[in-house]
Amino acid sequence: MLFAVQMTVNLPPGMDPEVRASTIAAEKEYAQRLQCAGEWLHLWRCAGRYSNLSVFDVVDNDRLNDILWGLPLFPYMDVTVTALARHPSAVR
Amino acid sequence: MLFAVQMTVNLPPGMDPEVRASTIAAEKEYAQRLQCAGEWLHLWRCAGRYSNLSVFDVVDNDRLNDILWGLPLFPYMDVTVTALARHPSAVR
Amino acid sequence: MLFAVQMTVNLPPGMDPEVRASTIAAEKEYAQRLQCAGEWLHLWRCAGRYSNLSVFDVVDNDRLNDILWGLPLFPYMDVTVTALARHPSAVR
Amino acid sequence: MLFAVQMTVNLPPGMDPEVRASTIAAEKEYAQRLQCAGEWLHLWRCAGRYSNLSVFDVVDNDRLNDILWGLPLFPYMDVTVTALARHPSAVR
Amino acid sequence: MLFAVQMTVNLPPGMDPEVRASTIAAEKEYAQRLQCAGEWLHLWRCAGRYSNLSVFDVVDNDRLNDILWGLPLFPYMDVTVTALARHPSAVR
Amino acid sequence: MLFAVQMTVNLPPGMDPEVRASTIAAEKEYAQRLQCAGEWLHLWRCAGRYSNLSVFDVVDNDRLNDILWGLPLFPYMDVTVTALARHPSAVR
Amino acid sequence: MLFAVQMTVNLPPGMDPEVRASTIAAEKEYAQRLQCAGEWLHLWRCAGRYSNLSVFDVVDNDRLNDILWGLPLFPYMDVTVTALARHPSAVR
Amino acid sequence: MLFAVQMTVNLPPGMDPEVRASTIAAEKEYAQRLQCAGEWLHLWRCAGRYSNLSVFDVVDNDRLNDILWGLPLFPYMDVTVTALARHPSAVR
Amino acid sequence: MLFAVQMTVNLPPGMDPEVRASTIAAEKEYAQRLQCAGEWLHLWRCAGRYSNLSVFDVVDNDRLNDILWGLPLFPYMDVTVTALARHPSAVR
Amino acid sequence: MLFAVQMTVNLPPGMDPEVRASTIAAEKEYAQRLQCAGEWLHLWRCAGRYSNLSVFDVVDNDRLNDILWGLPLFPYMDVTVTALARHPSAVR
Repeated sequence: MLFAVQMTVNLPPGMDPEVRASTIAAEKEYAQRLQCAGEWLHLWRCAGRYSNLSVFDVVDNDRLNDILWGLPLFPYMDVTVTALARHPSAVR
Repeated sequence: MLFAVQMTVNLPPGMDPEVRASTIAAEKEYAQRLQCAGEWLHLWRCAGRYSNLSVFDVVDNDRLNDILWGLPLFPYMDVTVTALARHPSAVR
Repeated sequence: MLFAVQMTVNLPPGMDPEVRASTIAAEKEYAQRLQCAGEWLHLWRCAGRYSNLSVFDVVDNDRLNDILWGLPLFPYMDVTVTALARHPSAVR
Repeated sequence: MLFAVQMTVNLPPGMDPEVRASTIAAEKEYAQRLQCAGEWLHLWRCAGRYSNLSVFDVVDNDRLNDILWGLPLFPYMDVTVTALARHPSAVR
Repeated sequence: MLFAVQMTVNLPPGMDPEVRASTIAAEKEYAQRLQCAGEWLHLWRCAGRYSNLSVFDVVDNDRLNDILWGLPLFPYMDVTVTALARHPSAVR
Repeated sequence: MLFAVQMTVNLPPGMDPEVRASTIAAEKEYAQRLQCAGEWLHLWRCAGRYSNLSVFDVVDNDRLNDILWGLPLFPYMDVTVTALARHPSAVR
Repeated sequence: MLFAVQMTVNLPPGMDPEVRASTIAAEKEYAQRLQCAGEWLHLWRCAGRYSNLSVFDVVDNDRLNDILWGLPLFPYMDVTVTALARHPSAVR
Repeated sequence: MLFAVQMTVNLPPGMDPEVRASTIAAEKEYAQRLQCAGEWLHLWRCAGRYSNLSVFDVVDNDRLNDILWGLPLFPYMDVTVTALARHPSAVR
Repeated sequence: MLFAVQMTVNLPPGMDPEVRASTIAAEKEYAQRLQCAGEWLHLWRCAGRYSNLSVFDVVDNDRLNDILWGLPLFPYMDVTVTALARHPSAVR
Repeated sequence: MLFAVQMTVNLPPGMDPEVRASTIAAEKEYAQRLQCAGEWLHLWRCAGRYSNLSVFDVVDNDRLNDILWGLPLFPYMDVTVTALARHPSAVR
């Protein structure tokens, strides 16, 4: 089941540089593991903004929720979730 | 080059049923041709709304503009365009 | 899988009274059938507005999309969809 | 009398971890007590966000206000309240 | 139980003048009857706009909903409802 | 002359508890004095939010401005002001 | 007493040209009469938009409301009203 | 003096095709004449939308207002105007 | 050339009282000097808010920009600028 | 390929003055280098606001993203990106 998720990151100006670096590194590792596992289907940068557009393929809403709450950057994110369905004009 | 496009359709209440049907049919044929050609990469329905989320792979902004203006439903659409870039955490 | 759906109805001022009445009657019959079938779990009126808050229990996003597109009043509705997950503080 | 309430939590980045943990624990205990008492009828997580959708069954507006002001996380919440009425198409 | 209600009226430009006049007359009669009955506590014009701010004193949400749906101008209104509670600093 | 005023309070998370308590106490005393004087006509809590809806009866805009700027919580408030006029359907 | 008023005009596309012309002419005459009378203090065009920014000097809210409701273009206007007070840094 | 202007066109669905074609042709001729005269400095299409971003170089606000009100498509446009000044980091 | 400018001030809660007082005093002196010079034509308080509505009469956009950037409170302001033109119904 | 970019800067009130000055100096140097290189085509100040409107001419979305993320003030900016296409009425 597919969901489009837009995540916008707002790191506080005074964030400790080491905490910042390690959180971003953990986020990258987390994102890559889920991509390899097939649940994080697409991950695009919204050009020029600290924001991404992602598509997830998960078994249900609870799994989506667990994945997003597990993001190391989750406490600093604004997140919007859009449930996707098959489009009648889609060829695949 | 990738662009995320959200299209929301607002058909006028008093639209002639035949014009409506033929426009929707033309839209479907147009969408499928561009998907087969590889320019319309993804086409998802936003569940429960007359709206889709699409991803286009085009050579430049002018081509994107031509494709969207060519949509049979374009006069009835609200469109938002987001330029996408490679994400540093993307595995592909 | 649960989804909260808010539907706001905007009937055009000049709508034919018979079409209006029959559409509303069909909507009621449709809503009651799905409630009895267990997919339309809750249906509340937002007090003082032509709007409802509903909760659906469906197998997946595609089924939710089919149900909402099948609403007789769908062409006149603004719809928002929120995917719901189990809350860690919920007792049930 | 039913009210839909959406609560969105914004914890300040620099919050003391112990205060944070104890406030969240107190919130959980508070929410479960009111659910068992029958006043907090439904509690759902909005998937992927630090937000919930709840339905309360209370005797009046004052009681609703007291319950929400009593939430341990109340100082960190954005709250919206929607008064619900019986829907003419509801089967229950 | 008190509710603040803001009603904004949007009459369609091509409305039949007689229907318009009779609807407005019916609205006035309806509003005055409910004021005399004590349920429509306050009715103020928002200066310079086709909008009013009202306060209702009703037994419950269902009654509020019935009153507002019964307004002759209801099909032309945008309505917002705010549940009011006793303020700890109020002297009355 | 009547004005509807909505005040929403945003106290900073790290506010000193004593300053906070004394400011809120001063606010209460200020509100009650003006209510007794007849200038602060109504004061209602918006249920479930740190927000109130008030109606003021003042001689002119300057007096309204002085009253609101004098609120002990004014530096922490978002304020909206709506000038009210007599409604043609009001019975009083 | 001063009020800033922004009026934005939305004439329906299919408006009868004569009605349109006579309404605009009546609006001009109305605006000039009130300016000469001293109640319509300032009238500026917001450059490039069918919108004006005006300042009125009236005895009270009721008079402001009467003036604005009397505008020949009032049924086609979006209006915002801002009560103005003396600024402590104003030299006049 | 420079101004950025965004114009978004909303043609009514039922517009007469000939009026539509002649209005668009007049708009093009008008735009090209002002570009050649040097007052309409830049004209870009916002990709995928019936909207343009333009920069005007005019002697004053009145001239900008006259140009925009003279646009054949003006009655169908939403217009936003931003006054531009020299940027301290600009090299030209 | 006239511009309407709305300035809304947001002073940070923890601002040093002396810095605050001296900044506000400098702002007042700055505003009065420009009013006397004839460039700051009008200065009104938006009643009940830390906000003003001003009208400036300047030679061009660059001068307007310099004046606003020079405001001692500029770093704490949200500013909106509206270019004003002569209104065809204005008597002056 | 052209993109319009609006950048709005929000420097935190308590920013260290030296860091602030050096960041702004680095921003200026960065902006001028890219203007000389031909990728930053236009840079205008939005009059009276800490905001600019820029036009970039880049080979693709990835290059635009790299440029914007490289801005020394990027962590303090709100950025909006609009893909531009050739306008059919443009003379150049």
